[in-house]
Amino acid sequence: MKLIYFPAACSLADHIALIETKLAYDLVSIDHGKKTADGRDFLAINPKGYIPALELDDGTILTENQVILAYIAEASGRLLPEGIGRWRVLEALAFMSSEIHPAYLPFFKDFPEVEKARARQKLAKSFAILEDQLGDQPFLFGDQLTIADCYLFWVLMVAPRSGVTLPERLNRYFARLKLRPSVVRAFAEEGLAL
Amino acid sequence: MKLIYFPAACSLADHIALIETKLAYDLVSIDHGKKTADGRDFLAINPKGYIPALELDDGTILTENQVILAYIAEASGRLLPEGIGRWRVLEALAFMSSEIHPAYLPFFKDFPEVEKARARQKLAKSFAILEDQLGDQPFLFGDQLTIADCYLFWVLMVAPRSGVTLPERLNRYFARLKLRPSVVRAFAEEGLAL
Repeated sequence: MKLIYFPAACSLADHIALIETKLAYDLVSIDHGKKTADGRDFLAINPKGYIPALELDDGTILTENQVILAYIAEASGRLLPEGIGRWRVLEALAFMSSEIHPAYLPFFKDFPEVEKARARQKLAKSFAILEDQLGDQPFLFGDQLTIADCYLFWVLMVAPRSGVTLPERLNRYFARLKLRPSVVRAFAEEGLAL
Repeated sequence: MKLIYFPAACSLADHIALIETKLAYDLVSIDHGKKTADGRDFLAINPKGYIPALELDDGTILTENQVILAYIAEASGRLLPEGIGRWRVLEALAFMSSEIHPAYLPFFKDFPEVEKARARQKLAKSFAILEDQLGDQPFLFGDQLTIADCYLFWVLMVAPRSGVTLPERLNRYFARLKLRPSVVRAFAEEGLAL
């Protein structure tokens, strides 16, 4: 399968998940003009115009970060527990996608200060909830890394752009994840400095 | 199970899904002060503070609209196709949750006009994508209603508050769904006028 990505964008979560699951993958970047590195018009691949997109071997295109993460987990049989634990992971992905990710928009697009201030309030509240969920566990849902951690890593990586200070445990968790071989490799493959 | 809801809010999607699946359910409303009708503090049930929440018979609480919808579908074995169709439905739910739903916020909260204007642009683009996906099908994914239709119904019901005119096929689709017995019953149970 091919992950269509933009360096350091939220597709980094899927990239880390692909490495963690040991699934075979190719990377195809897009440029700001929305051409893919293999010469295609990205809007023809995903009319919604945003990454990530996952191209399966039969040409099927999957979109939406949390859906691609769930697909990677199911395809590999990894990074997603069974039973109620599965629902908790999907819940965390939905929370990050619908509540946190849109709250970053004022900083990505430099919207007026009133919007940034409101977003900071929302982010601080959301980070406090994640900090409580994490508690003293190594990963968001216990001893094993799940796709929720892959997304959370990206969420925390972007946090400094908002000016919101991360709570202490989330901060230490982020520092730990950054040393993980899958993260180091994903950064190298996307041409990012650690 | 118990659906914790607010009348006419996005929990209406789950309410309609529960009726469609024929699962047994109870409804518990919350007031603006976030007390549930059975006298509990909603923040103790869901620290994120937003509806819907689904309380399972063993007391487990599920949150996030799209996750509750997926749970209802899996618990009943209905409203969610298998194979690639399942991923398409989950993709549509994620799109509505992460892109469309947050774009309604400026209208719900009466944010400044600059934000409303930007949201209208985003909504118009999102509706055009859904209009294309719907095509001439009776439901978003063919001949059978899925949980994506339950959410889309609510999305379209709220659209007039944004001032964005719905494309013609979505408009007709909405009018058709409104006559559906499950929708009529959900409106009656939430005390809404059709």
